[in-house]
Amino acid sequence: MIELDVPSGRPARFATPAPGDPRLARLSLNQRTTQRWSVLEAVEGCVAAGIPSIGLWREQIAEYGLDRSCRAVARSGLRVSSVCRGGFLTGPAADHERAMSDNRRAIDEAAALGAGCLVMVVGGLPEGSRDLPGARRRVEERIAELTVYAAERNVQLAIEPMHPLFCADRGVISTLRQALDLAERFPSEQVGVVIDTFHVWWDPDLPELIARAAGRIAAFQVCDWITPFPADALLSRGMMGDGHIDFGSFSSLIQLAGYRGDIEVEIFNAEIWAAEPSSTVATLARRYIEHVLPA
Amino acid sequence: MIELDVPSGRPARFATPAPGDPRLARLSLNQRTTQRWSVLEAVEGCVAAGIPSIGLWREQIAEYGLDRSCRAVARSGLRVSSVCRGGFLTGPAADHERAMSDNRRAIDEAAALGAGCLVMVVGGLPEGSRDLPGARRRVEERIAELTVYAAERNVQLAIEPMHPLFCADRGVISTLRQALDLAERFPSEQVGVVIDTFHVWWDPDLPELIARAAGRIAAFQVCDWITPFPADALLSRGMMGDGHIDFGSFSSLIQLAGYRGDIEVEIFNAEIWAAEPSSTVATLARRYIEHVLPA
Repeated sequence: MIELDVPSGRPARFATPAPGDPRLARLSLNQRTTQRWSVLEAVEGCVAAGIPSIGLWREQIAEYGLDRSCRAVARSGLRVSSVCRGGFLTGPAADHERAMSDNRRAIDEAAALGAGCLVMVVGGLPEGSRDLPGARRRVEERIAELTVYAAERNVQLAIEPMHPLFCADRGVISTLRQALDLAERFPSEQVGVVIDTFHVWWDPDLPELIARAAGRIAAFQVCDWITPFPADALLSRGMMGDGHIDFGSFSSLIQLAGYRGDIEVEIFNAEIWAAEPSSTVATLARRYIEHVLPA
Repeated sequence: MIELDVPSGRPARFATPAPGDPRLARLSLNQRTTQRWSVLEAVEGCVAAGIPSIGLWREQIAEYGLDRSCRAVARSGLRVSSVCRGGFLTGPAADHERAMSDNRRAIDEAAALGAGCLVMVVGGLPEGSRDLPGARRRVEERIAELTVYAAERNVQLAIEPMHPLFCADRGVISTLRQALDLAERFPSEQVGVVIDTFHVWWDPDLPELIARAAGRIAAFQVCDWITPFPADALLSRGMMGDGHIDFGSFSSLIQLAGYRGDIEVEIFNAEIWAAEPSSTVATLARRYIEHVLPA
C-alpha cells in the first residue's frame, strides 16, 4: 500500500516508523494537530503510533475531565510535554482577578498531569487600547505574580513569543529576545520559553537567541510556514516540509543549546483538521524523521 | 452634508481640510491607496484635495508613460515622495541580470521623476529554497551593486523592512534593525530606510531603532493594523484610526529622530480600493490630522 502524506496527498518519501522506532524517542503530538480527537483518543493514537509524548489542551482536558485525563495519561505511560495554555494577561484591572484565577487553574491542571510546562500565550492589546508598552508591562507584572503560585506546584511557566502577526490580538511578546528578557528574571525551573518554529523562524537574530536560551527552553514546537498565506491567519500553519522553514538548521541550533527534551508537532490547519487524525499522525511521524529529527 | 469615513461609513470626526490647510503640508498620497486612479488622476486628486506630495508606483507609471507622468507631476507642483518599488533581489544567479536590469530601470524612473527615494522591497525566499541567511546575504551584495548606479543618478535607495509575515514571499529584511545594519554601510544620501507603521509597529525595540535611524529615514509611510486579520494578507492594511497602532507615539518618535519629510499614506485594502478614490482621499486627510500629524 502506498502511504500518502496529509494534507498534500503525495506519496510518502519515508515509510511510517513502527512503534518502538528509536527515532521517535523525542516526538510529541500536540493535541491541536489532531483537533477532532478527545484526550483519550489522542493518548491512544500516540500509543498506537509509538509516539511517547503528548501536549494537551485545556479545552479538551475540560471536556474529558481532568481526573480521567490524568488516569488516561498515567495508564498510557506517555509523557505530557506541555499543557496549552495559560496567559491572556493583558486585560484591564477589572479583568485581573478573573485572568489570574483562570491561570491558577491552568497551573493546577499542569501540576496534576505532571506536565513539562504550562505554555503561556500572554495576550494581545485589550479591547480599544493602543498602548502596546502598557500591555507588555502588565504581562511582566502578572507573570511575576503567577510565578509564586506555579513554583509552589513545581510547574514551569513557558513564555511563548508569538509571531508579530498576532501582536494585536494574541500575544504582545513578539520575539524570543523579549521572552528571554522576561524569563531570565526568574530561576529557570520557574520560567522558561517556548520556541515554536512558526513564530520565530524569520528572526535574523535566531542563532544568538537560541544559544542564549540554553537552559531555558521549556518546549520546542514545530510546524511549517506555508504560502500563499491561508485566509484564516489562526489556521495558517503547515506540515513540516510543506513550507519554507529550514528545520535541519533549526534543530541543530536547538541541539547546540543543549535541549534534549520533547519536540512537539503543533499544527493549526483546516485541511489537516479535516483529515483522518491517524493519517495525520502517520504523516507527521514521517515528516518529523525526514525534516526535523536532530542529526 | 455629513461627511462619512471610508471604509467605515461612520460620520467623520473632523471636517475635511481645505486645500492650503497648513496641517496638510507634509501629507503624501501613496498612489496604491487610490488603486483605481491613473498617475494623472492621482496627481489631480492630490491637487484638488490640497495634498502637496505623492508616492508613485511603477505599474501605474508604465501604464501612463514615464514622460507623461513626469510632465503631469511637474505641471502640478507636487513633490514625489517616493517611487515604489525596486527590489526582489533574492533570486538565484540565473535571475541576477534580469533583476538588476529591472532595478536600474526603477532607478532611472525615480531620477526622472525627481523622487525623494526609490523604495526597495528586497524579495523573499527564492522558489524552492529554505536558505534564509543565504537570501539575506544576496540582498546585501545586490544592494551594494545597485548603490553605485543609484548614486550616479542621485537616487536614494530606501530599504523597507517588511513585516515578518512577508518574510517567505516578499521581504527577507524583517526588522528596522536589519534595514539599518544594511543601510549604514553606505553614505546616508545613498541608502536610507523606509519606516512603515504596518511593518514595524510590533517591534519592542522601536524607540531605540527609530532614534538610531536619525538621518536615514528616507520615507515614513502610515496605515493601520486591523483585526480580525483580513483573508488576503496582501490587502490587510487599514485606514489610520481603524486599528491598533498608536500613531501619536509613532509620529513623536519619528519627529524626535529629526525627520521632517513627507508622511505617505499607503493602504492596501480591498474595501478602500472599492470606494470612490476622492472619498478615500478626504477620509485619509481627516484621519491624518486626527491621528498621525506630529504634535
